[in-house]
Amino acid sequence: MSSGESFVEVGRESDFPLANLPYGVFNTPENRKQRIGVAIGSLILDLSAVVDLFDGPLLHKDNFRDGHPFSQPTLNQFMSLGCDAWKEARSTLQKLLSTSEPTLRDNESLRKKAFAQQSQATMHLPAHIGDYTDFYSSKFHASNVGTMVHGKEKALSPSWLYLPTAYHSRASSVVISGTSIHRPNGQTKPDPNQPPVFEPCKKMDFELEMAFFIGPGSELGKPVSINDTSKHIFGMVLMNDWSARDIQAWEMAPLGPFLSKSVGTSISPWIVTMEALAPFLTDNFKQDLEPFPYLRHSDRYNFDINLQLELKGDDMPDSAVIVETNFKHVYWTMKQQLAHHTSNGCNLRPGDLMGSGTLSGPTDESRACLSEQSEMGKKDVDCGNGTKRVYLQDNDQLTIKGYCQNDKIRIGFGECTGKLLPAISYPFAKDST
Amino acid sequence: MSSGESFVEVGRESDFPLANLPYGVFNTPENRKQRIGVAIGSLILDLSAVVDLFDGPLLHKDNFRDGHPFSQPTLNQFMSLGCDAWKEARSTLQKLLSTSEPTLRDNESLRKKAFAQQSQATMHLPAHIGDYTDFYSSKFHASNVGTMVHGKEKALSPSWLYLPTAYHSRASSVVISGTSIHRPNGQTKPDPNQPPVFEPCKKMDFELEMAFFIGPGSELGKPVSINDTSKHIFGMVLMNDWSARDIQAWEMAPLGPFLSKSVGTSISPWIVTMEALAPFLTDNFKQDLEPFPYLRHSDRYNFDINLQLELKGDDMPDSAVIVETNFKHVYWTMKQQLAHHTSNGCNLRPGDLMGSGTLSGPTDESRACLSEQSEMGKKDVDCGNGTKRVYLQDNDQLTIKGYCQNDKIRIGFGECTGKLLPAISYPFAKDST
Repeated sequence: MSSGESFVEVGRESDFPLANLPYGVFNTPENRKQRIGVAIGSLILDLSAVVDLFDGPLLHKDNFRDGHPFSQPTLNQFMSLGCDAWKEARSTLQKLLSTSEPTLRDNESLRKKAFAQQSQATMHLPAHIGDYTDFYSSKFHASNVGTMVHGKEKALSPSWLYLPTAYHSRASSVVISGTSIHRPNGQTKPDPNQPPVFEPCKKMDFELEMAFFIGPGSELGKPVSINDTSKHIFGMVLMNDWSARDIQAWEMAPLGPFLSKSVGTSISPWIVTMEALAPFLTDNFKQDLEPFPYLRHSDRYNFDINLQLELKGDDMPDSAVIVETNFKHVYWTMKQQLAHHTSNGCNLRPGDLMGSGTLSGPTDESRACLSEQSEMGKKDVDCGNGTKRVYLQDNDQLTIKGYCQNDKIRIGFGECTGKLLPAISYPFAKDST
Repeated sequence: MSSGESFVEVGRESDFPLANLPYGVFNTPENRKQRIGVAIGSLILDLSAVVDLFDGPLLHKDNFRDGHPFSQPTLNQFMSLGCDAWKEARSTLQKLLSTSEPTLRDNESLRKKAFAQQSQATMHLPAHIGDYTDFYSSKFHASNVGTMVHGKEKALSPSWLYLPTAYHSRASSVVISGTSIHRPNGQTKPDPNQPPVFEPCKKMDFELEMAFFIGPGSELGKPVSINDTSKHIFGMVLMNDWSARDIQAWEMAPLGPFLSKSVGTSISPWIVTMEALAPFLTDNFKQDLEPFPYLRHSDRYNFDINLQLELKGDDMPDSAVIVETNFKHVYWTMKQQLAHHTSNGCNLRPGDLMGSGTLSGPTDESRACLSEQSEMGKKDVDCGNGTKRVYLQDNDQLTIKGYCQNDKIRIGFGECTGKLLPAISYPFAKDST
């Protein structure tokens, strides 16, 4: 089925062929209610309009007297059902959308009700995110940043090669692609010999990341075995973890980044499922040390996902691709991240979000944030036509794209976009510097 | 009204006189539905049973066609309504419960329906906690810990006196008082010259804290002026932020504490409102530096709240009070914490939880965690009858209590309890060390 054709027209370069079928939450001008949809070509199949067509044993409407998972305003309930239900849904959807199946194809009134144009829809966060954790799992990124801050010999923190370093981040400020972000005000210390100042951030940066959503949760006090981790991973999105580097440098000792990271974190609206990604499994990153048994798995759980970031500034006639990287450069697998996260008994909830960390690769153009490319502001990053950046400028528009391709199929993630607006004026702090 | 009498019997030492009226969420064996209640003496007034008696302009049932805030399973909706609604609710409750008011007093069938015994009730988390942030706002604590780790000269991190240091913590693992916590497994490095090990935590600790709940939220990109902060603060609870010190020491560079803090965070079930706490306002902690204008306020927003922690181990005939401190030792006020948290535009949501950090005071017995009392394991902490601790032992039972008292009234927070269970066995990592 997965390489089959849909009766919905899908262009050769579309991110959303029948082999993909990512889930999202949308509404339309005609129907303001938020509902779950699946992207196919340039359309959205509104699952709330076809709930009755899910007739498998797990998703049959008779199982859900209090409301079907596809009639909800978020994906949390569907996420919580687990792999077997996800598989059943995918199978039903691939059948319903295939050229050979008349149910939808030949029912014009149902088609009219069930399909929306992506270009007409407003996308929303696909899930209620209970907690958002950000890992730091590219060794290239951690080494580059560590070298700039601590020198080459002490680039990686002592525990980095032993465990997937991460921090709890802020869930409230995770926003859907397209949301503009204000340059934050904050305390920084531009001159090491002078007191700090409170003013608009001068070192605003992006971080090209990906993130995965948790499916079924886990109980407090019950670690998830590495062998069971994949059952808890629903799918992936693109992510831009906006970062205020000067605020970060001043605030982060000793408890880690705080306000530098809660300015906004943008995610792409379509969650590409692990089933859709299966054809793009690739070898795990070769690890320097054999990990502890609780982090050990021999099966492949790395993915070949091409990623790029485009920047378009007011001063640029065209957008410039300034990052080209791949998810596969990640050192710690998502299985290892999840096993580590729960190894202390920390509980997970459906819809929790786990970021990869900045996905830098081995080359210069794969450095996946500006501070890494500009070596913390020391080097210009060429943006074409004589334009350049060291950090982001007001009104810079960022677009992250991602796709997987093999001989047979191509699936994509759509886009994760966001614009940096000027700092808000802060009248109640005007004499602060 | 606030010093008046209730027709419900309230003992002289009760935490819950008519002047308190804290909010919580409970259910009973007779009615498993989670509902909102107010503590009075040894009883709970079930607000879902008296919704119709809230006849003020803001809480009248006609305002809430989709469900009254007091008919919800959590306090989030009520929290979101803001100070005026809170004031109206308090005024209605004080009237309904007063000796002079017959409505409830003389209606036996309504009383029977509306009151439950606290001893019969099961308490639940009072709100859905969207995000949990933990501050680090006692200078005594930060100085003591900093001195042990970095020496006296570098005890406080460079930014500590300029901003209320904090980190995003884990919301999923916040649990209600009475929930037992398993000693976590984790990576630690007991011998600096040997590789790390994965085994049960050997330095399990508590942190005596308090925390406040956010009322109305704020928008992303819209800082809350210090002058408006108190409108966003609903009330306070006791908190024990369980901490795995050896896991923390190994994992926390460079991104801060992670699994050491998501083992569990216990909170007391009754939220004491800021209105109830108003009589116990006290002078703000004298700050060493004048803060930036966005953190500056001249009004008092510190509270005189007596706090203690009792420990009862299997080896102890009696429980021992090992911490006696006071909330007023906190350096940064809750107003400053909230203004700082939103200064970058980070949005708040009703029900967000903000911890104070370990509330150590100036004296030895006010050191509010074991690692501070034992100087990181170097000194025995006397627990009476020849028993002692450096860190927690399996089955140690902790009880935090808090109360405010002046010439006229005494109000309390009830208890925040929790027991440390032995580490869960970790069969899939048995050869890890």
